[in-house]
Amino acid sequence: MVGPWTRRAAAKATCTSRARQVPFYGIFSTLPARAHTPPRTGIAKSRAVLLEHAPFDMALIVQKYGGTSVGNPERIKNVARRVAEHRNRGDQVVVVVSAMSGVTDNLIKLAKEITPLPSEREMDMLLATGEQQTIALTAIALQQLGIPATSLTGAQAGIVTDGVHTKAKIRNITPKKVHAQLDAGNVVIVAGFQGETAEGQITTLGRGGSDLTAIALAAAVKADLCQIYTDVDGVYTADPRIVPGAKKLPEIAYDEMLELAGAGAKVMQLRSVEFAKKFGVVFEVRSSLNDNPGTIVKEETQSMEGIVVRGVALDKNQAKVTLVAVPDKPGVAARVFKALADATIGVDMIVQNISHGSKSPTTDISFTADKPDLAKARKVMDALKAEIGFAELAVSETIGKLSIVGVGMKSHSGVAAKMFETLAKEGVNIDMISTSEIKISVVIDLAKGDAAMRAVHKAFLGT
Amino acid sequence: MVGPWTRRAAAKATCTSRARQVPFYGIFSTLPARAHTPPRTGIAKSRAVLLEHAPFDMALIVQKYGGTSVGNPERIKNVARRVAEHRNRGDQVVVVVSAMSGVTDNLIKLAKEITPLPSEREMDMLLATGEQQTIALTAIALQQLGIPATSLTGAQAGIVTDGVHTKAKIRNITPKKVHAQLDAGNVVIVAGFQGETAEGQITTLGRGGSDLTAIALAAAVKADLCQIYTDVDGVYTADPRIVPGAKKLPEIAYDEMLELAGAGAKVMQLRSVEFAKKFGVVFEVRSSLNDNPGTIVKEETQSMEGIVVRGVALDKNQAKVTLVAVPDKPGVAARVFKALADATIGVDMIVQNISHGSKSPTTDISFTADKPDLAKARKVMDALKAEIGFAELAVSETIGKLSIVGVGMKSHSGVAAKMFETLAKEGVNIDMISTSEIKISVVIDLAKGDAAMRAVHKAFLGT
Repeated sequence: MVGPWTRRAAAKATCTSRARQVPFYGIFSTLPARAHTPPRTGIAKSRAVLLEHAPFDMALIVQKYGGTSVGNPERIKNVARRVAEHRNRGDQVVVVVSAMSGVTDNLIKLAKEITPLPSEREMDMLLATGEQQTIALTAIALQQLGIPATSLTGAQAGIVTDGVHTKAKIRNITPKKVHAQLDAGNVVIVAGFQGETAEGQITTLGRGGSDLTAIALAAAVKADLCQIYTDVDGVYTADPRIVPGAKKLPEIAYDEMLELAGAGAKVMQLRSVEFAKKFGVVFEVRSSLNDNPGTIVKEETQSMEGIVVRGVALDKNQAKVTLVAVPDKPGVAARVFKALADATIGVDMIVQNISHGSKSPTTDISFTADKPDLAKARKVMDALKAEIGFAELAVSETIGKLSIVGVGMKSHSGVAAKMFETLAKEGVNIDMISTSEIKISVVIDLAKGDAAMRAVHKAFLGT
Repeated sequence: MVGPWTRRAAAKATCTSRARQVPFYGIFSTLPARAHTPPRTGIAKSRAVLLEHAPFDMALIVQKYGGTSVGNPERIKNVARRVAEHRNRGDQVVVVVSAMSGVTDNLIKLAKEITPLPSEREMDMLLATGEQQTIALTAIALQQLGIPATSLTGAQAGIVTDGVHTKAKIRNITPKKVHAQLDAGNVVIVAGFQGETAEGQITTLGRGGSDLTAIALAAAVKADLCQIYTDVDGVYTADPRIVPGAKKLPEIAYDEMLELAGAGAKVMQLRSVEFAKKFGVVFEVRSSLNDNPGTIVKEETQSMEGIVVRGVALDKNQAKVTLVAVPDKPGVAARVFKALADATIGVDMIVQNISHGSKSPTTDISFTADKPDLAKARKVMDALKAEIGFAELAVSETIGKLSIVGVGMKSHSGVAAKMFETLAKEGVNIDMISTSEIKISVVIDLAKGDAAMRAVHKAFLGT
């Protein structure tokens, strides 16, 4: 085996711990040292910086490509060309791919033609084939470019999960085969979204599972760089379709990313970001359609605190439910939200005003939930009406939840006041308010949502 | 777990050897006792006979369904209904399925869009997904009927192969999981056509691989019954499209089946029958479209010898090559057929006539090969012409090879004479003759093939 990657392989021969089991879930006390130390080479460095230190700065890179990026043989060839570029610079590359777009939906359709409620174990067996097809095709495309490449299923890559089919959690990764293939000079292509239990049952990780595979693998193999390739350029200060002046962020803190996702910005599933935060995996969200640098997602740094608001998000998918004139006595709120939880209705914002009247004081309880859950929520509340004795159920679907997010809020005062003033100037009435340490959310009239978002973006971000 | 199968499971608890490794390949000295003894209950018995002995005659059945039988969700539901019938009678059932028809071709097409010569390891990774999808869908369809069912990939079913990708050989089967699932009361659905190496690489078994999976599994789990469901009713005395009077055979000997397949009758791949013969697996070929009994394939019995000719086959896919006036000296034939073997051209019949002339005697050497190999064979012979010094190369593609097959030939004389007489009466000239212990093949004019086949069928089989 000749080539620049052998230098890396040789350097690694002394690092006996690389192939050991890295537990992710449950047994936190045995976390590897890496989990709480910054990455070796530093992911925030650009390739240019990395290459200044050649020849010893060949990086170990994990790249993830979603279903659209590998949607047909032509696109798979494009992915292979991009991977080949890194490989030809001497990098070691682990590629995580999703199923080709449409494949998973098609398999679900086949199963539903047999029964509307197929067993989850068999759905995992069925759906895991989607990613398995992509890894083989991607390896073939790389080999066609003269790049040695091997595909591995989730199970072969050592991804061990619990047994909760269709939404399994990663328990640990034993990347023995991944290392062996990398050390042999191969690009390794791993099937995203899947793993197997300790008993050898095939499992899948649920929505956003391939991102999770990439981030978990990056932690397990101690990658220098983890890149999530998608069809957007990175994380923006706001949705550019609503706010034309929105800018791509060069970097963002995990917590900001989490709050933005929770606030309705569709970038990545929360669990992948949570996982990255927990294990200190710095990653980049970038486009597979161009070569623009993306957004680096990492632990917050002191310099980040200079920016008060990192992004603005507008969630148009929520509805508001108000229980009017609820008798103000202990246990009522608990009863309401227990009933909602039992019906698996996720509640986002909750607001309760202080009581009025002294004899039989009443209060109003408002909450927001996803619009598709509204009918179910109304049914649950109606069933409680007699027991709790509220006067009326008021429901509105024409609301928007506008949020500003930024770690800088922690050290800046007057942020909420500035947001409310801005909205007042726009003639936007505020219905509900909820705050966290790094986020302020308000519920407003949906019709004024876009204009309000633009005004707030301009006030805090200048454009 | 309640139901009739628990009796069987209880009975089995004393049989500790069931889960042990059954080597198939290489280490013949360690063959399990079963391999050379007749099946426990006797596959030739009909269900009616089996049920006379109830309640202890619940059978362990291996059923194989090909790609057409599972070609869409509706057909998969039909397969599930058929399996459920057996299961509801108290049988334990292992189902082996192929990929849905069209799926494998479609995957091959995707790979070929990337490169005309994809790597065989990655093709195995890719194609193995086809069967994996079918097992999941079949399990779902059974569960929908209220039948507990579990799918297993080839690897999970313990099918260990060598590492020759795209045409791997089964080395051994450790059906531990199959037994565990059966004993838990589940129907087990196993992906045909695939296995994995001892190192955990996914492999496929090549053409006819799912039949092989079924027969090998039947041997490994010591099944009472192995049924190969296909789109034909069984094995016929001749192709009914050519010989309207052809009859379905109730039984046939392995050797007859092998000779018929070699003679051009398309029923099953040779290797599956060879495997069944080697391990004494009695199996039935039958239709998945109706409930007619099929053809039992088994070791020949004394009673079989009463029938001189079991079947008649006509192979229209061969071409004849004649080397005219070859100098008759030692080593010439060896040189010719070595060159053909080196070019991986399969030669079927070979005929050489006695020499003429005393000073420099010459002879004619003729052989037949598959038509698609003809161009290659001609090239190989042309390259040899100077070295060997034959006068001319004569080639004919308008030939047919007509064969009669039957173990009864061993104990009957005059069979060849009767065949040649029949052909003479039809005005059919015989070009080449080749015989084995249980087969006589003649090469004749392709144009007279069908009529000759009908005449020979009538002479030996009466219709």
